[in-house]
Amino acid sequence: MTNIPYKIYLSESEMPKHWIDMRPFMKELPDPFIHPATLKPCTTENLAPVFCDELVKQELNTTEKYIDIPQGILDFYKMYRPSPVVRAYNLEKALGTPAKIYYKFEGNNTSGSHKLNSAAAQVYYAKQQGLTALTTETGAGQWGTALAMACAFYGIGLTVYMVKVSAQQKPHRKAVIETYGGKVIPSPSDTTEVGRKILAENPGTGGSLGCAISEAMEVALKTDNCRYVLGSVLNHVLLHQSIIGQETKAALDKYDIQPDVIIGCAGGGSNLGGLIAPFMAERLEGKNNIQFIAVEPASCPSLTRGKYAFDFGDTGKTTPLMRMYTLGCGFMPSANHAGGLRYHGMSPIVSKLYHDGYISARSVEQTKVFDAATLFARTEGTLPAPESSHAIKVAIDEALRCKETGEEQTILFGLTGTGYFDMTAYIAYNNGEMTDYIPTDADLQKGFDSLPKVEL
Amino acid sequence: MTNIPYKIYLSESEMPKHWIDMRPFMKELPDPFIHPATLKPCTTENLAPVFCDELVKQELNTTEKYIDIPQGILDFYKMYRPSPVVRAYNLEKALGTPAKIYYKFEGNNTSGSHKLNSAAAQVYYAKQQGLTALTTETGAGQWGTALAMACAFYGIGLTVYMVKVSAQQKPHRKAVIETYGGKVIPSPSDTTEVGRKILAENPGTGGSLGCAISEAMEVALKTDNCRYVLGSVLNHVLLHQSIIGQETKAALDKYDIQPDVIIGCAGGGSNLGGLIAPFMAERLEGKNNIQFIAVEPASCPSLTRGKYAFDFGDTGKTTPLMRMYTLGCGFMPSANHAGGLRYHGMSPIVSKLYHDGYISARSVEQTKVFDAATLFARTEGTLPAPESSHAIKVAIDEALRCKETGEEQTILFGLTGTGYFDMTAYIAYNNGEMTDYIPTDADLQKGFDSLPKVEL
Repeated sequence: MTNIPYKIYLSESEMPKHWIDMRPFMKELPDPFIHPATLKPCTTENLAPVFCDELVKQELNTTEKYIDIPQGILDFYKMYRPSPVVRAYNLEKALGTPAKIYYKFEGNNTSGSHKLNSAAAQVYYAKQQGLTALTTETGAGQWGTALAMACAFYGIGLTVYMVKVSAQQKPHRKAVIETYGGKVIPSPSDTTEVGRKILAENPGTGGSLGCAISEAMEVALKTDNCRYVLGSVLNHVLLHQSIIGQETKAALDKYDIQPDVIIGCAGGGSNLGGLIAPFMAERLEGKNNIQFIAVEPASCPSLTRGKYAFDFGDTGKTTPLMRMYTLGCGFMPSANHAGGLRYHGMSPIVSKLYHDGYISARSVEQTKVFDAATLFARTEGTLPAPESSHAIKVAIDEALRCKETGEEQTILFGLTGTGYFDMTAYIAYNNGEMTDYIPTDADLQKGFDSLPKVEL
Repeated sequence: MTNIPYKIYLSESEMPKHWIDMRPFMKELPDPFIHPATLKPCTTENLAPVFCDELVKQELNTTEKYIDIPQGILDFYKMYRPSPVVRAYNLEKALGTPAKIYYKFEGNNTSGSHKLNSAAAQVYYAKQQGLTALTTETGAGQWGTALAMACAFYGIGLTVYMVKVSAQQKPHRKAVIETYGGKVIPSPSDTTEVGRKILAENPGTGGSLGCAISEAMEVALKTDNCRYVLGSVLNHVLLHQSIIGQETKAALDKYDIQPDVIIGCAGGGSNLGGLIAPFMAERLEGKNNIQFIAVEPASCPSLTRGKYAFDFGDTGKTTPLMRMYTLGCGFMPSANHAGGLRYHGMSPIVSKLYHDGYISARSVEQTKVFDAATLFARTEGTLPAPESSHAIKVAIDEALRCKETGEEQTILFGLTGTGYFDMTAYIAYNNGEMTDYIPTDADLQKGFDSLPKVEL
């Protein structure tokens, strides 16, 4: 018998007091954001009208390795953190693997995911700056819920533009946001110029994330003391999510556990970037040789089949240009794809690390992901989010590989959230009605055609 | 600044190794179960065809104060326990109270409630006895989900008779049960004699919990190696739920915290009975003077307005007679009442303690409960279950009373679960469409008229 408990919790006094930024550890930095009009690197002045000042500072940071977490954010974190690192004893037993499987579980809060880590930070800084309102968009609703929770706590107004079809299909997610006091507007709406324009052109449209982003940004720019907030992709979001990795490393260090493989699902890259941060920092300093694996859906394969190019962050082409792995800002993931991870691009930091060979990537098919999710639920108890189950799938693959080779590897993966609001997808899977979709090269070419033609 | 953390977690090695039964501490025992045909106390032989042997033994126990938790159950508990005792610093601040508020949070598992504590035990014992299948009923779905999780873990078949109208209104709860491998049959169904009879008489009926119990019991009695399991009311369920109180007491003892008041919501009484168990044992030994408060809905007031009488546990009048506070087995709670806590009776152990003056009771109205739930969500983060919010409401009342008197009381309440699958009720509340219902004396009389006429 080993003496590693099922769940490793840090005590409150052991909780990390700072985030870690991977950029100062990198031999070569990601390319800077480019202003689409001037084609010059974005400055603080370019970004300040959209994001609050402290977040702009964090976004452009390349030298500070550690950023102190303010007490006001630590007070919020203490309500739902530290999250546990769990030893998947029962999954190991079911697989018959000599591998040791651990997962960091971020789902034990009402938003149901890791998104709350950055929501808390972004709302805190907005409040500190004296802002009175925030706007954002939400698709599946995890980010909107997280932000509503943080806005209720810090006392700041929130308007969420929720993709209309999601608001209709997920009335319960909408209701959670409203219970926390957030105002939900199905998008496109008649509250913005861009919304009215889209409605006039497509009267019956169910909306899109790109449209919701455009509406939320328009309102933020036109409203006094208001800013826009975003839940993934950006550098400051990865910074806040490094709390996941910081806690994980502290918990594993207590028991002298060194992972051989770290696996995370990757949509915009914030969970993966946050989970690996302190381990990657050591890797970049030559202190470990951990294998990092990003897992993405075969239906939206930005790393495995995308291009490393300058692209817009949104479908409406209003953001700065970011060099990242992308399918093109015009890429539309298949409607049959369940859950999140449907972003056309990838965090510039994660993209650069992948480009330089520090991270590998795999794409997995939807039905295989739900096979893994179901096995996990039945053995480990927790019903996982479809997004998180991408990581579960590859963790199981690796554990089965160890079974063949006899390797006693230590596998760590990120369980980003729970699937309680994703039962429509589980029903489709349980009923045998779920299908897989892999875009053809021709499908992908349509997305690549939307890439901006930039000569730098 | 105090040094009590936001969340007190026990380490795995500090987890309780035994349950505690309140009965051996009581000066006077609850009346025994009475066989409705013989009017004599039920024997092991009477109960064994319905419940598995170890549970019958626990049900009839009156002398063993502590029951060892088998290793096979501890292994399951370790996946989702210990649960935290949380200091509600932010709720205290919002109320401006000198009281110290703590809550024991049982919602961090996929069943979303404390029900899993007894499900694990009941399924484990069934497996040990060589049974191959279990049947049960579920209304809102928490018990069915908990049981499906335990059956998946221990490898035993499960059929859940789910009230038809619930199965239709809560397809996501049904899907969770199915994801764990449970078979869900909307009740009434054509799979049982009683179901076919009810369907013939009421072709369009949406079913009832009483009917679902009758179907589940019929199948258990007619199937080899199969038993029926129940999630509340019974003595062995309270025994298993004492893990809540055992953990709570161990956690508070670590910081020398002594509660002045302990508050629990009460439907069938399993959560309340489990939470208070070790504290009540000490109270019965004269070692403390804690005030225990049971909170029930004004719409289903078994303790505050019921009779202490022998009654059936089910609407179909098939169970043994139990002496308990009851509204009569024919009592039907208002359809507008959200969530659980709609049982006509109350645990015989809780009833006896209430009858003897060790527990007090309060009834609260639905809209006030949701006021409390919303304040709690916005200050403490977690979106509470409607059931749990009954306890929150009275904890807030007590904290506000302390604000007036200046008392620095220590208030502990049980947060039994999360409200993620109860958003329909939250939507009604958010939209101002929720109403209160308080039965008239005439309404209650109809229920009392259904009480069996027993002369003992």
